[in-house]
Amino acid sequence: MRIGCNELRAKIMSAEEAASFITSGSTVGLSGFTGSGYPKAVPLALAARIEAAHAAGDPFKVRVWTGASTGPELDGALAKADGIEFRLPYNSDPLVRDKINRGEMQYFDMHLSQVAPLAWQGFLGPLDTAVVEVSGIRPDGSLIPSSSVGNNKTWLDRAKQVILEVNAWQNDALEGMHDIYYGTALPPNRVPIPLVRPDDRIGQPYFRCDPGKVVAVVQTHAQDRNLPFSPPDEVAAGIAGHLLDFFAHEVKKGRLPASLLPLQSGVGNIANAVLAGLVDGPFENMTAYTEVIQDGMLDLMSCGKLRMASATAFSLSPEAAAALNADMHRYRDKMILRPQEISNHPELIRRLGCLAMNGLIEADIYGNVNSTHVMGSRIQNGIGGSGDFARNAYVSIFMTPSTAKGGKISAIVPMASHVDHITQDVQVIVTEQGLADLRGLSPKQRSKVIIENCAHPDYKPELVDYARRAAERSYGQHSPSMLNEALSWHQRFVETGSMLP
Amino acid sequence: MRIGCNELRAKIMSAEEAASFITSGSTVGLSGFTGSGYPKAVPLALAARIEAAHAAGDPFKVRVWTGASTGPELDGALAKADGIEFRLPYNSDPLVRDKINRGEMQYFDMHLSQVAPLAWQGFLGPLDTAVVEVSGIRPDGSLIPSSSVGNNKTWLDRAKQVILEVNAWQNDALEGMHDIYYGTALPPNRVPIPLVRPDDRIGQPYFRCDPGKVVAVVQTHAQDRNLPFSPPDEVAAGIAGHLLDFFAHEVKKGRLPASLLPLQSGVGNIANAVLAGLVDGPFENMTAYTEVIQDGMLDLMSCGKLRMASATAFSLSPEAAAALNADMHRYRDKMILRPQEISNHPELIRRLGCLAMNGLIEADIYGNVNSTHVMGSRIQNGIGGSGDFARNAYVSIFMTPSTAKGGKISAIVPMASHVDHITQDVQVIVTEQGLADLRGLSPKQRSKVIIENCAHPDYKPELVDYARRAAERSYGQHSPSMLNEALSWHQRFVETGSMLP
Repeated sequence: MRIGCNELRAKIMSAEEAASFITSGSTVGLSGFTGSGYPKAVPLALAARIEAAHAAGDPFKVRVWTGASTGPELDGALAKADGIEFRLPYNSDPLVRDKINRGEMQYFDMHLSQVAPLAWQGFLGPLDTAVVEVSGIRPDGSLIPSSSVGNNKTWLDRAKQVILEVNAWQNDALEGMHDIYYGTALPPNRVPIPLVRPDDRIGQPYFRCDPGKVVAVVQTHAQDRNLPFSPPDEVAAGIAGHLLDFFAHEVKKGRLPASLLPLQSGVGNIANAVLAGLVDGPFENMTAYTEVIQDGMLDLMSCGKLRMASATAFSLSPEAAAALNADMHRYRDKMILRPQEISNHPELIRRLGCLAMNGLIEADIYGNVNSTHVMGSRIQNGIGGSGDFARNAYVSIFMTPSTAKGGKISAIVPMASHVDHITQDVQVIVTEQGLADLRGLSPKQRSKVIIENCAHPDYKPELVDYARRAAERSYGQHSPSMLNEALSWHQRFVETGSMLP
Repeated sequence: MRIGCNELRAKIMSAEEAASFITSGSTVGLSGFTGSGYPKAVPLALAARIEAAHAAGDPFKVRVWTGASTGPELDGALAKADGIEFRLPYNSDPLVRDKINRGEMQYFDMHLSQVAPLAWQGFLGPLDTAVVEVSGIRPDGSLIPSSSVGNNKTWLDRAKQVILEVNAWQNDALEGMHDIYYGTALPPNRVPIPLVRPDDRIGQPYFRCDPGKVVAVVQTHAQDRNLPFSPPDEVAAGIAGHLLDFFAHEVKKGRLPASLLPLQSGVGNIANAVLAGLVDGPFENMTAYTEVIQDGMLDLMSCGKLRMASATAFSLSPEAAAALNADMHRYRDKMILRPQEISNHPELIRRLGCLAMNGLIEADIYGNVNSTHVMGSRIQNGIGGSGDFARNAYVSIFMTPSTAKGGKISAIVPMASHVDHITQDVQVIVTEQGLADLRGLSPKQRSKVIIENCAHPDYKPELVDYARRAAERSYGQHSPSMLNEALSWHQRFVETGSMLP
């Protein structure tokens, strides 16, 4: 029995009826983080309502707040219906991305740790409706979270009205896995967050929710957007190899404990290759303090090397999701899902000393990193939690293949066409070519190491030549650049489809 | 009696003798933060030693770590002697700046909160010698800090040998004002920092120091580098006016308490104008949690509106320093000086919810801020603590006159030629033209507000034209740009001495 509260059972209705509570121009806070735990029925019904309104000549758009990316039944459907006026804080949906890049949707791309505090701060305006997927409702009306926590605590607290989706597809063994911290506040009432190890539980397993605010309960049975997993290719394995060598070197030098420090890992092929490498590596009793639990972390837990993982969501392939669901009782005690303002909190990342491993679009020869804007103007996804982790990490690592688009784009460029991570926050860059340890180096020293160790041979001579000429002609010699040439590689790509000369 | 410890009194010697303990190629950690509390005799003697070595044909350079900027007797003298091989983390000395910009000195420009942790982390190598100014030595060998704390705790703990300068010019009423926190550690042993209000004392008033490590004690009577104060001009007063209106508006909207939140303020003309404006403003019982206590803060304390200020150093004009020294007992209990890893700690800045007010060199139309590199390549000073505060502030504000160099440089440009603060960390930009509140806006919305409210009329039509054409031609429309034109204003300045067409 997923809905144990009589008062809320009385509010069970169809997704269409529930969606009718959402009005045009209003702000909707939805659950969902990297394709996990987003509502799967009400957004579809809302999209249909919006399409009907548009067909009748009536305007209908909403402002959409989420945890991070969601799934096609939410972002995809609402974007297709042309129903999103404003979107925060992170998106990976292709339809939404197109609309943003055509200038048809306002997108506020924000550090993930700061979204909940900003919602409390007030300048984003009121939150009219929360639409939150849960895995169950308890007799007292408290809510058992789903496969992501994200900003749900804040949406439930702040919204004037609440719509719940109770998803019976979610494993009921999720109950007890979550740690919802209710100690946050606005200044001057903030206090230390009492978490000192990734395993600490500092909150409660359930969301509070005033049943009087709940206007609708919708029952669903729908799986998360679990993306297929591609096994590591040679390039990813090369990157992983360089990084594991670095970790081993740091342990040998006494600069990292033998069990490393809490891992933060982005998602995708390279991140999974690193985790796969750790399965065969020498490090034991590792922990993770990160945003998402992905396939590679389950493997690391299975083999006993990863003691536990703290995150705000799952991000699994269909196979891994099935394996997890089949064996949840075995994994459950090794995993904690928290609100994203806690999983990504600068206070905690700095205290724990995370080893941050994130991807990038391009890095320049000084180590400025662009994580978001292709050719400086086209948004890819968003900054996500990379800024939370990179600035506060014990070691901040960025990983990328040295080229993209079949070699037509160099990941190492004379000047980043957009900057998300400044040189101070980028300590290690790894490509399949090698690893650049930038700690303690001046800009010109950094440029030497990055070009030498990380650039692809097709681009290395050009980069060496640029750096040499910049060192002769630049206005200043701290970070030499040639202003009329710095972005010429990007311009060449826009004009010819390739950065190659 | 400034030196109460017999064991250390036995080590009193001349600056020349003390400097002989410092060897070529070694790393020296010196006290000093914005011209306060830096050693004034040993660096001069070291510079003379270096010059003598160079005259004899012997190489002699040292690696210099400090708190932040120092004074001519330290950075200036060592740079003149061509004695600095490597410098961290912040500099404002003109000679050092020239050497960096000629490529003759390696400069590692780092977030000020992270310097002490990095020194413990180990990859910067060992610290051979600490040279620290104190205002006195107690009978048990513990040290009474001087007019800045900076990284002194870490230098004293980490250095193999210690040289102390006891400066009798410093007011002996400084004793008891400092709060030296000894609870820091490397991960996995870090714990919450137990500070919840700017007034909290969480440490002790003295530095610990093993007398056995002290190789020399030098007595000095020399004043800090106190720079003259220029009263606010019309432009600074205009900026302050816009900002105070904003604060009043936020209080009215219920988004800021009536006593505001702890102020962080950079130094200089504009910062002092804001503080002067607050003297006549409606806000009472204010506090400051900041890097330095400057003239304007003393005035705010005198009139009773600033209840207390926490910082890591003084940064005063000669007149204010004299006034403070004459009246120290009156001010003393309202001021706390802390290590810079605490004054600038992200955990504490975020918890307290500081209102961060920093200067800039240029901002682009999307709100990326360049604080460090003139024309993208020439270092001005350094990032200092601006990144610590801007990313974690309750409201992150950047202030600047709309033009520089008599109107030949626009502070608002199509694209920042270097980025220190990404758009996510820049919430308010203020010039004498007006204030841009960027919170919650998409890039294109930001560009409209910045150009309209902040740009100088001489440059506004050009910016409007750039934004319009970029919106037609850009590769992507999230943050439209024209790659072959984005840096053309800077190129024009380099070629013609003016950004004006």
